[in-house]
Amino acid sequence: MTESNLNATAAPFVASFQNNAPGRFAQSSANASRASELASAKIRLQGALRHFPDFPIKGIDFVDILPLFADPHLQETLLAALELEVISSFPTKPDVIVALDARGFLFGPGLALRLGCKFAPVRKQGKIPGPTVTASYKKEYGEDFFQMQKDAVAPGQTVLIVDDIIATG
Amino acid sequence: MTESNLNATAAPFVASFQNNAPGRFAQSSANASRASELASAKIRLQGALRHFPDFPIKGIDFVDILPLFADPHLQETLLAALELEVISSFPTKPDVIVALDARGFLFGPGLALRLGCKFAPVRKQGKIPGPTVTASYKKEYGEDFFQMQKDAVAPGQTVLIVDDIIATG
Repeated sequence: MTESNLNATAAPFVASFQNNAPGRFAQSSANASRASELASAKIRLQGALRHFPDFPIKGIDFVDILPLFADPHLQETLLAALELEVISSFPTKPDVIVALDARGFLFGPGLALRLGCKFAPVRKQGKIPGPTVTASYKKEYGEDFFQMQKDAVAPGQTVLIVDDIIATG
Repeated sequence: MTESNLNATAAPFVASFQNNAPGRFAQSSANASRASELASAKIRLQGALRHFPDFPIKGIDFVDILPLFADPHLQETLLAALELEVISSFPTKPDVIVALDARGFLFGPGLALRLGCKFAPVRKQGKIPGPTVTASYKKEYGEDFFQMQKDAVAPGQTVLIVDDIIATG
């Protein structure tokens, strides 16, 4: 058998193997590439965060996320990483992204846009117009009442709540 | 002269005219198309706004912008319209988009991303970590102190401040 014959024999086998390769090979390769993209994005994002110890009170190491917005490339990376995180973590895309006032507003609408979701804000009592639903909420530094527009979420819709609480005591 | 000859004569003239057309023809056509796109976007956006009279206090007609975020297509239209508005209104792109807590956070980062700008938030005193600059600010319903990170804007940079004050008395 000549080298040329060998190639001619091998080619259809390779083509056939590729055609018959079960979805999970492609799936697993896509997952691996997604995981590696996410890991690399996280390193870039974590490297940009700033730490302010004892803010706003003694004992709190405040992690400042604002540098992520001070550079459009980092903001893009942040939104891409959040999108990847959502896609990898849940079986289906959420219907509504709900974000908490005020830092959740910085990236909640951008994430909703990337995912093609509705966005709804949660704010302190008295800030949101129209019919609202109210809930008491235990914050890191106390308790408060939060409100959301009543028609923001329809029955049966899946909701993803985003906030930026990465400050640690 | 046959029709075919006429065409053969006319074609190079048209090509030459197109090549020599001064920039302002293309510019003016781009401006017209931009103005028409912006006008159509504004109609769509205004149609989606909701009005709540006497909120938060009697005599205020509160214009609710939240429907613009409840639909990703409307959010996209909003950001595109804001981008067009900025491009049409200023000779150069701003370096930094500054937004006011909290509703300005809903679209400030998205606008900064579209324009390729830095984004910096302005918040009430005590909320922003690190070295800050402080200013007193006369709001619609009183006065307050606002802060921004000191390094958010470098000397000589152009800044565009965005807010959502469309409530009318």
